[in-house]
Amino acid sequence: MTFTTQLARATRLHNSLLCVGLDPEPSKFPGAWAGDADRIYDFCAAIVDATKDLVCAFKPQIAYFAAHRAEDQLEQLMAHIKAVAPDVPVILDAKRGDIGSTAEQYAREAFVRYRADAVTLSPFMGRDTVEPFLAYADKGVILLCRTSNPGGNDWQMQRLADVPGQPRLFEHLAHLAHSQWNTTGQLGLVVGATFPAEIARVREIAPTLPLLIPGVGAQGGDAEATVKAGLTAAGTIVVNSSRAVLYASRGEDFADAARRVALDTRDQLNAARN
Amino acid sequence: MTFTTQLARATRLHNSLLCVGLDPEPSKFPGAWAGDADRIYDFCAAIVDATKDLVCAFKPQIAYFAAHRAEDQLEQLMAHIKAVAPDVPVILDAKRGDIGSTAEQYAREAFVRYRADAVTLSPFMGRDTVEPFLAYADKGVILLCRTSNPGGNDWQMQRLADVPGQPRLFEHLAHLAHSQWNTTGQLGLVVGATFPAEIARVREIAPTLPLLIPGVGAQGGDAEATVKAGLTAAGTIVVNSSRAVLYASRGEDFADAARRVALDTRDQLNAARN
Repeated sequence: MTFTTQLARATRLHNSLLCVGLDPEPSKFPGAWAGDADRIYDFCAAIVDATKDLVCAFKPQIAYFAAHRAEDQLEQLMAHIKAVAPDVPVILDAKRGDIGSTAEQYAREAFVRYRADAVTLSPFMGRDTVEPFLAYADKGVILLCRTSNPGGNDWQMQRLADVPGQPRLFEHLAHLAHSQWNTTGQLGLVVGATFPAEIARVREIAPTLPLLIPGVGAQGGDAEATVKAGLTAAGTIVVNSSRAVLYASRGEDFADAARRVALDTRDQLNAARN
Repeated sequence: MTFTTQLARATRLHNSLLCVGLDPEPSKFPGAWAGDADRIYDFCAAIVDATKDLVCAFKPQIAYFAAHRAEDQLEQLMAHIKAVAPDVPVILDAKRGDIGSTAEQYAREAFVRYRADAVTLSPFMGRDTVEPFLAYADKGVILLCRTSNPGGNDWQMQRLADVPGQPRLFEHLAHLAHSQWNTTGQLGLVVGATFPAEIARVREIAPTLPLLIPGVGAQGGDAEATVKAGLTAAGTIVVNSSRAVLYASRGEDFADAARRVALDTRDQLNAARN
């Protein structure tokens, strides 16, 4: 089953546009687990168990594992998600981007080693750095397009002098991704929730590409504006929340608290689409 | 000692502008090691031992380790380089790029876990994604600027409509890196060897930033043109060769063969600066 199909199926099955981001920070772990990097798997698995019927995807962010020498715990977590939530696709948030031969290694890391269903990539080095990932026909490949951090303006908002109509870089990227690079139907785009007008613009340019939208919750994006800007009959969205769910409580009730926040967020997103 | 000082010292000490890139591919390993991912450390350590007096830096590319679950071998290799070649700085080629909290984790991965002296980053998400790396005052931070692959044209060559003079993106990036972002003296830039005219342009815009120049050897860049375009009294260059050195022979003599190619390449680079 392709990532796109898997995503559509999980979205329908769980009536959810919510993706829970797994960004484990041991310093924020509850109770006796606080500061213990050996509990990364236990913490993330508890979050997965508590929210798996409420989400359309999970998104582990690989830096949080790599910083703690916890690749083995990430492997274990990926296997756990496949076991307890086989219907939920997993997006490995890695933002890799490198030339062909190196990109092949990164694709192997994401899709063979970690068995991710999709991966995030940086498009800075251009189209040929994306292609080795497309060789895995069932997998999704989600390109950074318009990011929600302040520095997102530095390049993504630049207007391109030599492209007809002088679009902004993120607009031209959305255009290329939709009309030229997406020959295999595997591409999606990352667009930050803090810029609803730009979500709408990307949706207009790329009507059918799935949009991964981080920044709802701790980063301050508005759930209703996000859904209205990005979701259409032809184009789905995956709205990510990480910290607001993971660290809803620092006590023993952290998993229950995470479930409550995930449920609230899912319901807010659903309210906005009706 | 800062990365810049370390690099200048190793360049002088070994009379070398050459960086050997460590991109281990088990399928290309010699003799009985062929195909054996458990030999990644042994292979790379042999290359390091054979070339350590000929280089100004080593550059392990992390994807080649991650694809084979070989992070432990990368840690072992970093420790080995520190032990046998304490004067040679190590650039971890990772091309990371993410928002502040995630960037902090990647900085920890590169500088704390792997004890790299410098790291390569993608600037696509902008200045604030670079800053967490600059918090490690002794470390170097080398930004992708103009890459040597075909897709390097997709964004890096675009002229920016709203910036005075409508520079190309890579030119504006070199300008910002040199005149605004480099407040701590830690930055460098990646510029591909396949475009000597663009190396010269980057050197003109950023007279003092160290330039990491991949693409000499297997990728076809010309050593002489590279040196003439990039090296000045005020601005050093680090010229990387990976495959041409690593896989100079597929026989038992691979380390000797690697040394011969490294020596030739070093001498070619030195001939060009005289």
